[in-house]
Amino acid sequence: MLRLLFVGDVYGKPGRRVLGTHLPAIRDAYDFIIVNGENAAGGFGLNRESAQAIFKAGAGCITLGNHTWNNKEVHTLFEDGRVIRPLNYPAGAPGAGYTTFTVGGERLTVVNLLGRVYMDPNVDNPFSLMEDLLTRPDLGTVFVDFHAEATSEKVAFARHFDGRVAAVIGTHTHVPTADTRLLPGGTAFQADAGMTGPYESIIGADPEGPIQRFLTGLPHRYVVAEGPAQLNAVAIDIQGGRATRIERVTHLEQ
Amino acid sequence: MLRLLFVGDVYGKPGRRVLGTHLPAIRDAYDFIIVNGENAAGGFGLNRESAQAIFKAGAGCITLGNHTWNNKEVHTLFEDGRVIRPLNYPAGAPGAGYTTFTVGGERLTVVNLLGRVYMDPNVDNPFSLMEDLLTRPDLGTVFVDFHAEATSEKVAFARHFDGRVAAVIGTHTHVPTADTRLLPGGTAFQADAGMTGPYESIIGADPEGPIQRFLTGLPHRYVVAEGPAQLNAVAIDIQGGRATRIERVTHLEQ
Amino acid sequence: MLRLLFVGDVYGKPGRRVLGTHLPAIRDAYDFIIVNGENAAGGFGLNRESAQAIFKAGAGCITLGNHTWNNKEVHTLFEDGRVIRPLNYPAGAPGAGYTTFTVGGERLTVVNLLGRVYMDPNVDNPFSLMEDLLTRPDLGTVFVDFHAEATSEKVAFARHFDGRVAAVIGTHTHVPTADTRLLPGGTAFQADAGMTGPYESIIGADPEGPIQRFLTGLPHRYVVAEGPAQLNAVAIDIQGGRATRIERVTHLEQ
Amino acid sequence: MLRLLFVGDVYGKPGRRVLGTHLPAIRDAYDFIIVNGENAAGGFGLNRESAQAIFKAGAGCITLGNHTWNNKEVHTLFEDGRVIRPLNYPAGAPGAGYTTFTVGGERLTVVNLLGRVYMDPNVDNPFSLMEDLLTRPDLGTVFVDFHAEATSEKVAFARHFDGRVAAVIGTHTHVPTADTRLLPGGTAFQADAGMTGPYESIIGADPEGPIQRFLTGLPHRYVVAEGPAQLNAVAIDIQGGRATRIERVTHLEQ
Ligand SMILES: [Fe+2]
Ligand SMILES: [Fe+2]
Ligand SMILES: [Fe+2]
Ligand SMILES: [Fe+2]
Ligand SMILES: [Fe+2]
Ligand SMILES: [Fe+2]
Ligand SMILES: [Fe+2]
Ligand SMILES: [Fe+2]
Repeated sequence: MLRLLFVGDVYGKPGRRVLGTHLPAIRDAYDFIIVNGENAAGGFGLNRESAQAIFKAGAGCITLGNHTWNNKEVHTLFEDGRVIRPLNYPAGAPGAGYTTFTVGGERLTVVNLLGRVYMDPNVDNPFSLMEDLLTRPDLGTVFVDFHAEATSEKVAFARHFDGRVAAVIGTHTHVPTADTRLLPGGTAFQADAGMTGPYESIIGADPEGPIQRFLTGLPHRYVVAEGPAQLNAVAIDIQGGRATRIERVTHLEQ
Repeated sequence: MLRLLFVGDVYGKPGRRVLGTHLPAIRDAYDFIIVNGENAAGGFGLNRESAQAIFKAGAGCITLGNHTWNNKEVHTLFEDGRVIRPLNYPAGAPGAGYTTFTVGGERLTVVNLLGRVYMDPNVDNPFSLMEDLLTRPDLGTVFVDFHAEATSEKVAFARHFDGRVAAVIGTHTHVPTADTRLLPGGTAFQADAGMTGPYESIIGADPEGPIQRFLTGLPHRYVVAEGPAQLNAVAIDIQGGRATRIERVTHLEQ
Repeated sequence: MLRLLFVGDVYGKPGRRVLGTHLPAIRDAYDFIIVNGENAAGGFGLNRESAQAIFKAGAGCITLGNHTWNNKEVHTLFEDGRVIRPLNYPAGAPGAGYTTFTVGGERLTVVNLLGRVYMDPNVDNPFSLMEDLLTRPDLGTVFVDFHAEATSEKVAFARHFDGRVAAVIGTHTHVPTADTRLLPGGTAFQADAGMTGPYESIIGADPEGPIQRFLTGLPHRYVVAEGPAQLNAVAIDIQGGRATRIERVTHLEQ
Repeated sequence: MLRLLFVGDVYGKPGRRVLGTHLPAIRDAYDFIIVNGENAAGGFGLNRESAQAIFKAGAGCITLGNHTWNNKEVHTLFEDGRVIRPLNYPAGAPGAGYTTFTVGGERLTVVNLLGRVYMDPNVDNPFSLMEDLLTRPDLGTVFVDFHAEATSEKVAFARHFDGRVAAVIGTHTHVPTADTRLLPGGTAFQADAGMTGPYESIIGADPEGPIQRFLTGLPHRYVVAEGPAQLNAVAIDIQGGRATRIERVTHLEQ
C-alpha cells in the first residue's frame, strides 16, 4: 500500500512555518508527501529558499500552478525533477510536467496540470495532454494536482480519468472542499485541497488589500497576512494503483 | 435562538426529489429554512411548479442567482416576497433582493447577492449595495446568500461584513467547501453550500455532456444526471443577531 | 496575380440581402471571394439556405467562427470543403479547418482560426496549429481568417506569420478597423473586416435588446435589426504568394 | 462652432515624441484638444513628466483608462481638473471623472468612462453613471472617451446616448476603427481612436514579448517598441452641442 499526503498551496512565510513545524510531526504516517508550492515565496511563485524549506519539512516533490513563473529562481529548481510545473506549456518550456518516483519499490507518477476556464487560455488542453501521458508505459500509480478555478472543469477532469489514475486533487482556490470521495471507478477526488497559510486572511493575503480593492475599484497592495497558519492537506491510501481511502487532514497553529 | 437551515442550489428533478423526501424529516429542527432554487427547473431557473415543491418541503423562502431569469415563470413568483432575486439589479427590475420575515417574533432579513469576478460584470457592486442595505432600520438578523464564483470575492465579502450580519453563505460552484466557521467578528461563513442534486454528475449535469465539451471544444447538450441525489446544506444557530454555531448538513439518497 | 475579396461576417437576412445584390455587381473584379458566414442564419451560425445564398452571390468558400456550431445544419455542409470551420478543434471534429482551392491554375489555401483571449479557452493554440500547417507542402498562397476578440492576439498572430502567409484578416468584432496595411514582411493585414449586415444596429442586432441588457443587467432577446445593410470587405492583390495591395471595400444600401 | 481633436492612447516615449512634433503643427486648426494618456509613461499610466509633455504639445485635457493607477504620480496630477480619470470609481476615489471647460465662451464637458465587458468588473455601471451626469445643468457640449474592449458595449453606449452627447469616441484596443460616422441622432462616433505610438509594434509593445507569450504560455517582458510612431486621432466639428462632422486624422513619422 502507498500512503500519500498532498498539501495544498503553501502561502508565504506563515505557510512555510506551519509546514515546517507540523509536517515533520506527521510525515512518518506517509510513504510520500507532495506539496503545492506555487505561493511559497511571499505569495507569488517558488524561490530556492522556499523549495529547500518544503523539502526539509518532508516533501518528496513540489507541484506548482499559474504562479509558476512569478519568481525567476524557479528556473534553477527543475534539474532533479522534484519540482514539477504544469504539463500544459508547449515543448521547449523549462522543467517537466510530471515525474515518476520510486517509492518503496513502487512507481509513482506525479502530474501537475492547469485548467483553462477563467484562467490563462494560453496553455494546452489538459484533457488531451493527460490522455497522451497515459499512453506511456511504466507510470505506475498516477497522482494529479489539477490546478484550476472552475468546479465544472475539475469534476469533469476527475470523472473522465476515473479508474485510470489513482487521485485527482484540485488546487488554486485556496479553499478546501468538502466533496472528498472515491469516484465510482476508484479514483480519489477532492475539488480543492485548500491553502496552507494564514488563517485570518483572504486566500492568504491580509484582508485590507482585497477588501479595499472590491470597495474602491482601485489597486491595493496585497501583503501576506499574519497570525496563526492552517495546514490543509489530503491523505490518500492506494493499493495496486487504485485509491482505497481519501481523507482531509488539517492543522491550525495555536 | 434562531435555528436556520440553508440548502444549496436545488438542481432539477433529483434535487427536488431529495428535498421533498428529506427536508420534511428534519424541518422541525429549524425555525426557518432558506433554499437556493436557481437550478430547480431542469437546471435552469425556477418555475412555478418547482417553487411550490420547494415551499411544500418546508422552505420559508427561496433565493436565486445568475440563473434567475432563465425561466420566465419566475416573474409570476415575486409577489409575496418569498422568492428573492439578487439585489444587484438596478431599480425597476422585477422582484426584490431581500425580504424581512418574522420568525418566532424575531425579524430575519434574507439577502441574495451576485458576485462579479468571473461572472456577469453587468450588475451593481455587491459590497456597496450591502453597505446601503445595512443602513436600513429593523432588518433584525441578516442572512446573506452570496452567489459568486471566486473564493477571493466570497471571503472578502464575508470578512468585510463580519460582525454586521449573522451569516454569509456562498453558492454557485455546486461544491460544498470545508471552510465552515465563525469568523472573528461572529459571522457564520462557508464559501459554498454545495448543490442539492444528482450525486454522480458534473455539478448536476450528466457527465457525458461536459466531458465531451472539454474534449472536443464543441457544444454538447447538458442533461440533468440520474441516480441518487445528495442534499447539501448548512445549519446556523443565531442568538441576538450573531451566529453561535455553524455546521454542514448533508444527506445522500440510497 | 490573384485578386481576392474577403467579406466580413454576414449577419442575418439583411446581410444576405446586401451580399446578394452587391456581390454579383463586383465579383468580376476578383479571382476568388471568401465570405465569413458565421452569423448568416439569423445571427447565429450557418444553415443550408444561407450557405446556398452566399455561394450563389459569388463566394468561392465560406469561413466561420465561434458561432460555427449554433445551427445544426452546418454538419451537412462540410462535404465538399467549401465551408471551412476553425482549425482549432481537435482531431475528429466534423469538417476541416482549411481547404486548398485551385484558382486560375494557382493554389490558394484558405484557413480559419479562432483566437483564445476573451473567447472560449477550450480550443487549441492557433499559433502552433498554424506553424504545423505551414510545414505542409503545396499550400500555395495562404489566406487566414483569424476570428478573435483581442487586438493584441490578432496583431501578434499577423506579425508572427508576416512574410509566411499572404494575408491575415481578422473577424468577430463586427467593426471594420482602419489599420489596413502591408506588414514589413509582405503580409496583408487588417485587424477586423467588419460585418455585413444592418447599418443601424449594435453589431447586427436591433439596438433595443443590447441596450436594455446593459441598462438592466437582465437578459433581453436579440433580434436582427432592420433597415439598410452595409457590406464590409477587404480586397487583396497577391503576386507569387505575397500581397502587393490591400484596401477596404464597403457598400451601403440606399 | 467648436472644432475638437481627440488623440488616442499615447504610448511611451515614441507616442510622446510624435505628439510633441506633430500636434503643434496642427493645433491651430482646433479649438480644443483632448488626449488619452493612459499609456504615456512607458506604456503604463501617466506620470508628471508625460503629462507636462502632453499639455505642452497642445492638449487642453488628458483622459485615462484601465491603466489610470499604474503610475503613482497620477495622484499629484488631478488638482486643476485637466487630468480626468474614469468616472466609474466610487465616491472618494482621487480625481474626477469629468471636467467642464470654457472654450471660446462655450462650455465643453469632457467625460472619461470604463466599459466592463472583458474588463475589470469592479467599477460602476457606465450607462447609469452617464444618465446621472446628464441630469446636471450647464454641461454644455459633452464629449465622452469611452474606454472599453467590446464593440457591443461601445456601440450600445453610443446609440443609447445618441443625440444627448456630441461625441462618443472609444479607446483601449489601440487599433483605430473605420466605422467613423454621425449616428442618426447626431452624435459623432468611432468605436476606437487607435493608439499614438510605435508603428511596428503589437499595440505599442515590441512584437517579441507578446509573440513569445502566445507561443509559449510563459510570461515575457513587454518593452516599448522602437522606430517611427503613428498618431491616431479623430476630428469633430460641433455646432450647438451637436456634431456636424467627424473624420479620422492620422500621421506617421518618417
Ligand atoms: Fe493558483
Ligand atoms: Fe495558489
Ligand atoms: Fe447554481
Ligand atoms: Fe449560479
Ligand atoms: Fe460574427
Ligand atoms: Fe464571432
Ligand atoms: Fe491604452
Ligand atoms: Fe486601456
